[in-house]
Amino acid sequence: MKAAFLRRAGEFYLEDVAEPVCEKGTVLVHVKEIGICGSDLHYFNEGRIGDHVVTGPHILGHEASGIVEEIGAGVSGLTPGDRVSIEPGVPCMACESCLEGRYNLCLEVRFSGAPPYLGMFREYLLHAPRFLHKLPDGVSFTQGALVEPLAVAHNAVRKAAPKPGDFILVTGAGPIGLSCVEMAKVAGAARIIVSDRKLHRRDAALALGADLVVNPEDGGLVAAIRDFTGGRMVDCAIEASGSESAIGEAVLAIRKGGRVVFIGMGKEEQKIPHAEIIRKEATVLGVYRYANDFRPVIDLLAAGKLKGFPWVSHRFPLSGIVEAIGLANDPQMETLKVVVYT
Amino acid sequence: MKAAFLRRAGEFYLEDVAEPVCEKGTVLVHVKEIGICGSDLHYFNEGRIGDHVVTGPHILGHEASGIVEEIGAGVSGLTPGDRVSIEPGVPCMACESCLEGRYNLCLEVRFSGAPPYLGMFREYLLHAPRFLHKLPDGVSFTQGALVEPLAVAHNAVRKAAPKPGDFILVTGAGPIGLSCVEMAKVAGAARIIVSDRKLHRRDAALALGADLVVNPEDGGLVAAIRDFTGGRMVDCAIEASGSESAIGEAVLAIRKGGRVVFIGMGKEEQKIPHAEIIRKEATVLGVYRYANDFRPVIDLLAAGKLKGFPWVSHRFPLSGIVEAIGLANDPQMETLKVVVYT
Amino acid sequence: MKAAFLRRAGEFYLEDVAEPVCEKGTVLVHVKEIGICGSDLHYFNEGRIGDHVVTGPHILGHEASGIVEEIGAGVSGLTPGDRVSIEPGVPCMACESCLEGRYNLCLEVRFSGAPPYLGMFREYLLHAPRFLHKLPDGVSFTQGALVEPLAVAHNAVRKAAPKPGDFILVTGAGPIGLSCVEMAKVAGAARIIVSDRKLHRRDAALALGADLVVNPEDGGLVAAIRDFTGGRMVDCAIEASGSESAIGEAVLAIRKGGRVVFIGMGKEEQKIPHAEIIRKEATVLGVYRYANDFRPVIDLLAAGKLKGFPWVSHRFPLSGIVEAIGLANDPQMETLKVVVYT
Amino acid sequence: MKAAFLRRAGEFYLEDVAEPVCEKGTVLVHVKEIGICGSDLHYFNEGRIGDHVVTGPHILGHEASGIVEEIGAGVSGLTPGDRVSIEPGVPCMACESCLEGRYNLCLEVRFSGAPPYLGMFREYLLHAPRFLHKLPDGVSFTQGALVEPLAVAHNAVRKAAPKPGDFILVTGAGPIGLSCVEMAKVAGAARIIVSDRKLHRRDAALALGADLVVNPEDGGLVAAIRDFTGGRMVDCAIEASGSESAIGEAVLAIRKGGRVVFIGMGKEEQKIPHAEIIRKEATVLGVYRYANDFRPVIDLLAAGKLKGFPWVSHRFPLSGIVEAIGLANDPQMETLKVVVYT
Repeated sequence: MKAAFLRRAGEFYLEDVAEPVCEKGTVLVHVKEIGICGSDLHYFNEGRIGDHVVTGPHILGHEASGIVEEIGAGVSGLTPGDRVSIEPGVPCMACESCLEGRYNLCLEVRFSGAPPYLGMFREYLLHAPRFLHKLPDGVSFTQGALVEPLAVAHNAVRKAAPKPGDFILVTGAGPIGLSCVEMAKVAGAARIIVSDRKLHRRDAALALGADLVVNPEDGGLVAAIRDFTGGRMVDCAIEASGSESAIGEAVLAIRKGGRVVFIGMGKEEQKIPHAEIIRKEATVLGVYRYANDFRPVIDLLAAGKLKGFPWVSHRFPLSGIVEAIGLANDPQMETLKVVVYT
Repeated sequence: MKAAFLRRAGEFYLEDVAEPVCEKGTVLVHVKEIGICGSDLHYFNEGRIGDHVVTGPHILGHEASGIVEEIGAGVSGLTPGDRVSIEPGVPCMACESCLEGRYNLCLEVRFSGAPPYLGMFREYLLHAPRFLHKLPDGVSFTQGALVEPLAVAHNAVRKAAPKPGDFILVTGAGPIGLSCVEMAKVAGAARIIVSDRKLHRRDAALALGADLVVNPEDGGLVAAIRDFTGGRMVDCAIEASGSESAIGEAVLAIRKGGRVVFIGMGKEEQKIPHAEIIRKEATVLGVYRYANDFRPVIDLLAAGKLKGFPWVSHRFPLSGIVEAIGLANDPQMETLKVVVYT
Repeated sequence: MKAAFLRRAGEFYLEDVAEPVCEKGTVLVHVKEIGICGSDLHYFNEGRIGDHVVTGPHILGHEASGIVEEIGAGVSGLTPGDRVSIEPGVPCMACESCLEGRYNLCLEVRFSGAPPYLGMFREYLLHAPRFLHKLPDGVSFTQGALVEPLAVAHNAVRKAAPKPGDFILVTGAGPIGLSCVEMAKVAGAARIIVSDRKLHRRDAALALGADLVVNPEDGGLVAAIRDFTGGRMVDCAIEASGSESAIGEAVLAIRKGGRVVFIGMGKEEQKIPHAEIIRKEATVLGVYRYANDFRPVIDLLAAGKLKGFPWVSHRFPLSGIVEAIGLANDPQMETLKVVVYT
Repeated sequence: MKAAFLRRAGEFYLEDVAEPVCEKGTVLVHVKEIGICGSDLHYFNEGRIGDHVVTGPHILGHEASGIVEEIGAGVSGLTPGDRVSIEPGVPCMACESCLEGRYNLCLEVRFSGAPPYLGMFREYLLHAPRFLHKLPDGVSFTQGALVEPLAVAHNAVRKAAPKPGDFILVTGAGPIGLSCVEMAKVAGAARIIVSDRKLHRRDAALALGADLVVNPEDGGLVAAIRDFTGGRMVDCAIEASGSESAIGEAVLAIRKGGRVVFIGMGKEEQKIPHAEIIRKEATVLGVYRYANDFRPVIDLLAAGKLKGFPWVSHRFPLSGIVEAIGLANDPQMETLKVVVYT
């Protein structure tokens, strides 16, 4: 089978390797589509994210859908031919976080594509059956691949816990921020405000139904929100940029008793309007990946309530992975989401 | 001005009375549209609801919109000409429930239309400014009148607290149940199941976007839900009928860890599947009227995300109130929502 | 080793059987103390609880502590000689409930003592290491055995979620109810009211710090609470009896917006004050066993904040199990908690 | 009557002024004891806190108890001679925050002692009856005065929402931090860890039942917690110092999924470990004053479960207010809580 390897930062190549052999308790999946995520680009550019270091040929990719090719002994509930979305992290299910239902916080998680665990830019992979989610007929392989970033947004929005009719701010309109815009709309936001420095992203937010888009470089995001809401400010802010200025603006933009979700990671430490959190009795919630979020996202896609990345901007065959990564990595190209197919 | 009076059970008449005089701290509202609610019919038919007894000529009606005619001394934030939805209950704002933000539970509430407090089937009324909510341009007087039942649904849905993608059951598709169907859809339900004995109500639910409607008299609501959901059952059930069988079905229809909201009131005591609540660790929540729910409903109407009773079935001038009440009161007529206008 | 078997309802005997052999991934525990629970008596008297039927020689018992005797291959974190409390239910960790952190709701749970899974009235047993909880030095084997019922109370109290200073009612003062009294006191209740028909249980509640005890057969529990609290009623009620009258009283005894926890199971269906749940906007929560509750209970025992069944009333060696069961089963004997030791 | 005035920063004097006259809807209270709070010292030293500026003779003081002297027309529920704790902030009860039960966030609040509203260092004051809380016989005037800081701690602990058995960190052991230590203990913490730079405060924490005290200047608070808890870290952290280093330590000290409460205010902006909030999916909650917290604190004092500042270190008559303020203001004096009596 073909697989795409990152040898070291900046060096990506395609190679033929042996297909994995289906073992007891595992499932062999024929990968169909794989999204390119910002973290893939991080590994490509820097060869590492925090403690996860690329030390030898490594396969990236963790947003994928496929078809069940073969099931190992003892596996039930899946049949060859099933179309599936692949939840990339397989937790230990024995640590305290796992027992508490927060398996996304598992320290022993085997997360596809995060070294040393190989990822999904390849034709076949083995996976734990519990973390393969069947796709109903109406959900495409592209949607199935992009359940992953939508699951992040689902986690963010369920933590933000908007009530129908809330006003919601999303800071940062990359793929995760845009997914949050879609999800906030699904969750019944009456007004959605989006800030991003890039015009093509603000345009994508408008196309998804944002009611106001703001370029924060114009310097007046909080004032713009005050004007737009007649002083009410927003009920929830979802901070998806990781930038210090946006973090501050998110806190300043919420009303008294409001909620802020931090999902974008930037510097390890960031300055925040601490006194304002106290004076407003704000609730601030960290969001990390997802737990139990794949199924509801697939249900929403099946129900047609979530479109799921109508804004995929480019598609390449797996053989064009080097070009695809190059494109996604080029800030001048104004890509939104680049998808690879086998 | 004209006002409609209930002298005693079954006896309704229209009379000319003096307009109220605007006092300090109050607002005089020219009433525009008033919905007829099931509780109005209760008073009409039985002359009482619980401890609230009609002992002399009484004005019913608590779902209304209007135009600010005059503001009393010391009132700010409202201007003659403002279009408003009228929140009928004016709480004491001094008891424990009020201080805790649950002013709907206030024992001293002055609730328009519940004896001894006169209601809204009339041309002019005085009201507390805090409980008049401005209507934006795009929201009609009909929608403004029906903010009240929609606010009940908003309270029910925020207590049910669905996550985007949840499956939701609504038992009972009268005006409150149908409002809950609309609101559940706004809140991001992936699937909505509705049960009601009456065909025209099930049809209204389908028109609002229900995915499955069931006649519970067919005897298999829980089984139908099991089939429809592939055994998953629903995440939340909103019980809007008050019937004992529906209460039991709502508890049986939720999944483990699911939530049931009780909103329909029937007999004082009802038999419920108690052991099942324990085995499932269900959460059961009572919902009574609304608190802080008018504004988000109006925001949703303004945003076009909530239509707000697209299923108003009949409209009468205030002079036709006797006919309107008669119609709404006739079970053969299959009305959905009857609205009176001045 | 010795083990106590229930052949059929009413027939209990002690027999020498082979010790279990420690397998890969399991731990052999030398059982030290085992509490007798009401459900053990149910099996003894009726040979079944619901779908769990005693069809052949069966070992009861699920409240136990012991010493690690041997660890199987691949087990880490435990060493022979470790003193442990045994969490009896081993969930599948793969179903939806398990992934959501509610492993107590797992349908595939292997629960020691519930047929067909053998229980703990014996000298040695094999168990999953994840569900053995180390006991610190200051915690006795008796306390270690009784972590199980205290974990039920911990689950009940964390669902009741009292704020410091709340008034709490516990209906039913059997071992679970008394454990809830202890736990409610630990959680900062300002006032604890307990109802039970039996004097010796009310006395035990007083000894644990209850501020008011009431015999519900006197007919005035709700009125007594109204008097005692000056009309405030209680913030939370924990219903630990399963009796229909207590269920109703629990709902009537809470204040507006209050919480009721159902933990005592009686008839499958029970009549409840349904309209009152709505008028009060009460929250009703089912509690079933425990999930992630063993560790905090052990921490509280270690800290000396929880005594843990200071009211063990009788102790027998395992060889006296028949006598112990007979005693616990005799309503005239007014036992509180009977413990068996090896 | 005598009243203590702050003319401008640093200038405090006592003067005889006319007693206030009891008006309709108000209550005249004979003040008995008043605590000196850190914010009083701020006003004393700097003449302002944020937008609250001392522009003329001003009376400080907002922690007080007293005796009802006279009740105005229309006041019910209070009688001359009643002993009361005075909740200093009287909210508007008409804004959105007030209607939502978060009256502590009211922008129109009239807060005694915060300019322009006169405070409590005087013999008589008028107050809104709803914000006078009767003291039961067993609760002293000193305790009654100190309900105010204890209410802050009650708000902090109910937001931290510990489960019985949780491990809790309190950073900063001034009067608010120490109150949080007491309250955390009442709420069932299994272990309480306290950090403060000052030995006499750490000693007070130990006397209140802290299990570990740490001087953060030794540089190893997080490591000390890791050691003390065997790597588990704390479930909740209550940050009561407002210092940037403590804020960071609080975030680093919680376990995955843990909670941090911010209550100490320092610089407007503070650097926090932002990425760690995300990786841990931490919940961070701002706490500002209190809402509905006086009553449970008084209940806990009455029940003897809360001692309420057993660590009052100095007491002065009102005539000694200048000396009292001077003492409290002197960092060399190592005072804990200084109380003034009339």
